Amino acid sequence: MADQTYAITHIVGTSPDGIDQAIRNAVNKAGETLRNLDWFEVEEIRGFLAHENAIEHFQVTVKLGFRVDD
Amino acid sequence: MADQTYAITHIVGTSPDGIDQAIRNAVNKAGETLRNLDWFEVEEIRGFLAHENAIEHFQVTVKLGFRVDD
Amino acid sequence: MADQTYAITHIVGTSPDGIDQAIRNAVNKAGETLRNLDWFEVEEIRGFLAHENAIEHFQVTVKLGFRVDD
Amino acid sequence: MADQTYAITHIVGTSPDGIDQAIRNAVNKAGETLRNLDWFEVEEIRGFLAHENAIEHFQVTVKLGFRVDD
Amino acid sequence: MADQTYAITHIVGTSPDGIDQAIRNAVNKAGETLRNLDWFEVEEIRGFLAHENAIEHFQVTVKLGFRVDD
Amino acid sequence: MADQTYAITHIVGTSPDGIDQAIRNAVNKAGETLRNLDWFEVEEIRGFLAHENAIEHFQVTVKLGFRVDD
Amino acid sequence: MADQTYAITHIVGTSPDGIDQAIRNAVNKAGETLRNLDWFEVEEIRGFLAHENAIEHFQVTVKLGFRVDD
Amino acid sequence: MADQTYAITHIVGTSPDGIDQAIRNAVNKAGETLRNLDWFEVEEIRGFLAHENAIEHFQVTVKLGFRVDD
Amino acid sequence: MADQTYAITHIVGTSPDGIDQAIRNAVNKAGETLRNLDWFEVEEIRGFLAHENAIEHFQVTVKLGFRVDD
Amino acid sequence: MADQTYAITHIVGTSPDGIDQAIRNAVNKAGETLRNLDWFEVEEIRGFLAHENAIEHFQVTVKLGFRVDD
Amino acid sequence: MADQTYAITHIVGTSPDGIDQAIRNAVNKAGETLRNLDWFEVEEIRGFLAHENAIEHFQVTVKLGFRVDD
Amino acid sequence: MADQTYAITHIVGTSPDGIDQAIRNAVNKAGETLRNLDWFEVEEIRGFLAHENAIEHFQVTVKLGFRVDD
Repeated sequence: MADQTYAITHIVGTSPDGIDQAIRNAVNKAGETLRNLDWFEVEEIRGFLAHENAIEHFQVTVKLGFRVDD
Repeated sequence: MADQTYAITHIVGTSPDGIDQAIRNAVNKAGETLRNLDWFEVEEIRGFLAHENAIEHFQVTVKLGFRVDD
Repeated sequence: MADQTYAITHIVGTSPDGIDQAIRNAVNKAGETLRNLDWFEVEEIRGFLAHENAIEHFQVTVKLGFRVDD
Repeated sequence: MADQTYAITHIVGTSPDGIDQAIRNAVNKAGETLRNLDWFEVEEIRGFLAHENAIEHFQVTVKLGFRVDD
Repeated sequence: MADQTYAITHIVGTSPDGIDQAIRNAVNKAGETLRNLDWFEVEEIRGFLAHENAIEHFQVTVKLGFRVDD
Repeated sequence: MADQTYAITHIVGTSPDGIDQAIRNAVNKAGETLRNLDWFEVEEIRGFLAHENAIEHFQVTVKLGFRVDD
Repeated sequence: MADQTYAITHIVGTSPDGIDQAIRNAVNKAGETLRNLDWFEVEEIRGFLAHENAIEHFQVTVKLGFRVDD
Repeated sequence: MADQTYAITHIVGTSPDGIDQAIRNAVNKAGETLRNLDWFEVEEIRGFLAHENAIEHFQVTVKLGFRVDD
Repeated sequence: MADQTYAITHIVGTSPDGIDQAIRNAVNKAGETLRNLDWFEVEEIRGFLAHENAIEHFQVTVKLGFRVDD
Repeated sequence: MADQTYAITHIVGTSPDGIDQAIRNAVNKAGETLRNLDWFEVEEIRGFLAHENAIEHFQVTVKLGFRVDD
Repeated sequence: MADQTYAITHIVGTSPDGIDQAIRNAVNKAGETLRNLDWFEVEEIRGFLAHENAIEHFQVTVKLGFRVDD
Repeated sequence: MADQTYAITHIVGTSPDGIDQAIRNAVNKAGETLRNLDWFEVEEIRGFLAHENAIEHFQVTVKLGFRVDD
C-alpha cells in the first residue's frame, strides 16, 4: 500500500448562529470543490459586531486536511 | 478621512449554556459601557465544575475591539 | 488550613453535536473515575469528517484540574 | 523611592502609508488621553485590502505601557 | 442568578526584592482603583540592571481579573 | 443573505526596500490570480544578506484572506 | 544499559508565601505517590485574590518528570 | 531583476519508516504538481498506532515554499 | 454508538540512535501498561551530551492518546 | 563538499526612523565583528516613547545567522 | 547621538534557594565577562530533583541584553 | 559547591542524510570551540530543495547548553 499524502487548506467559515455552525459552513463550502476531506482543526475564533453591539457573525478559521489521490 | 484608531479590552463572559452564549454575554456586558464595538477574538475557553462534575459555567475570554471616537 | 494541591489530566471528548457537548462528554467520562473535578481549559478543537464531507464528530481536548485529597 | 507601577493598554493604529506610521498613529491617539507613555510592543500586523487589491490601510496592534502616577 | 462577567487589566509591578513582591505591588496598586479583584496570571518576568550589574528591579506583567458589578 | 466564506493563502513577498513594500508585492502578485482579496496578516519577517552584509531583500510571509464566490 | 523512559505528570501547587514555595508543595505532594521524580518545569503562574485585594495563594502549574522503573 | 514571490503550501507526508522519509514523501508528492519547490519547514510531527502498539505511520506536516513564476 | 473518549499521557522516550527510535521506545514502554494506544504527537526533542561532545541519547517527549474503554 | 554549519546571534537594533532602519542598523553593527552573515529573522518589535509621547526610537530584535568557517 | 545597539546572550542560572536567586546568579556570572548589562527576561523556569524528592536546584534561563560599545 | 551556570548557543546543523545527522553535525561543530557541552534542544527543522525537488539538505536549529567554567 502506498504511503498516503494529505494537503491542508485554510478556510474561514461564518455564521450568525454560533461557532459550531461556522465550522460546518466552512466544511460544506470546502466540500463543493475538494474531495476526500478527512479532518479539521480550529485555528482562530473571531467575530464581527453589528449595530447595538449584537454579534453579526462568528468567524472560525479551520485547517482542513484532505487526502491527495494517487 | 482621518485614520481610524481602535482600542482593545479583554472581557470574560460566563454562561452555563455553552461557549456561544458566554461570548454573547461578554459582548452584551461590554456594550453597556462601550460604544462602537467592532470585532471580537476568543483568547481562552475555560470553565468551572460544580458538584457531581457537571459544568457550572463556561468562561470565555474575548478581546473586544472598539473604535475610538474622534 | 493545609495548602491545596491539584492534579491535571488531559481528556479528549467527542460528540457529533458540537463543541459544548464534546466538552461535557469529556467531563462526564472523567467524572466516572476522578473525584473533585474543579475546572477545565480547552486546549484543542479538532474533528473528523465522514463521507459526503459531513462532520462525523467534534474532538475537544480539555485539561481537567481536580483537587488531590489529603 | 517608591516602586514604580505601569499599566498596559492595547491600541490598534491604522495608516495607508505603512507599519511605522500606523504605530505612530496609535501612540498619538493614546497620548491624547494617557500621560506618561513609556514603551510599546507590536503584537499583530494586519491590513485590509480595497478594490483592485491595493492595501487600504495597515492595522498594527500595539501594547502601550504607561507609568501610573503615585 | 445572573451570569457573572469579569474584565481583565494588565499591570506591570516592580520591586528590587524579587518576583513575588513585584506581583504583590501590582495587585496593591490595582486595588487602589479597582474593586473585586479576583485572580491574576503572570504574563512576563523581566528586569532592569543597574551599575555593577546588580538587579535594580524585577518587572512582572500580570493579568488581573476583576468582577464587573451588576 | 448567504453566510460568506473566505479562503486563506500564504504568500512570501520580497523587496530590497523594506517590509511595507514586501507586503505590497505579496498582495500585488496574489491579486494577479485571486479575486476578492479582503485582508492580510503578517506571519513572519525575514531577510537575506548579501556581500558586505547589506540586506539583499526583506521577505515577509503574509496570510491573505479572500472571499469565495457563491 | 536499557534506554530510560520518563513519564510526565502535571501538578498545581499552591502557597500563600510565594512561587518558590508553591513549587515545593507541588513536588512534595507528588512525591507522596510517585517515586523517582527527576525534574520539573514551570508551565503557568497564577493566583487568587482574597478580600482587601491581598493575594490568598499563588498557584503554580508544574510538569514533573519521573523515571519509569524497568 | 523583478522581486521574487513565493507561495506556501501545507502537506502532510506519511511513512512507516520514520520522520525523514515522511518529509521526503511530502516533498515528492508536492513535486508531482508544483514546480520550483524551494524550501520546507516542519510544522508538526504526529503518528498513528496500530494493533500491538506498533507505529503504523509517522505523519509530518510541512510547509513547502515554491517560487511563483513571472 | 456511544461517543468515544480518549485520554492523553505524556512520555519521554530516549535512545542513543535517533529521534525515530526514541519515539518507538516511548510507545513501547507505554504499551506495557496502557491498552488501545491510538496516536502520538511530538512535543519536544532534546538530548544530552556525553564526554567528547558525542550525543549520549536523544529525548523525545510525546503525547500519547488512547481510547478509554466503556 | 562538507556540510555547512551556521551560528545564530541575537541583536537589538534601534532607530528613530522606523523598523526597517532599526533592522539595517542591527545588521550593520553585527557586520563589524562577524563575517558571512547570511539571513535574519525579526523576533520582536518594540520601542521607547519620549516626552510629548513621540517615539524616541524603535527597537527591533533580530536573529542573525552566519556561516561558520571551516 | 549614534543609534544604540544591544546584543542578547542566553544564560541559565541555578540556585537551591529559589527563582530570584537563580536569576541573580545568572546575572552575576554574566557580569564577570560582559559589560553594560541592561535588562533581562525570564525564558524558562525548570529544576532538578534530588533524593527524597527535594528540589536540588532551580534552573532559570534568562535572556540578557547588553549595550554594544561604539 | 558553587552554583553551576550554563550558557546557551544557537547552532544550525545541516546534512543531506536526515534530521539526526544534522543535529550531530551541529554538536560536532560546536564541540570544536566549546567545552563542556551538556544538552541540546531542537528549535526548528527546515530544509532546502534542489533541482528535481529532491531534499538538498536538512537544516536543524539547536539550542546547545554548556557549563561555564569557574
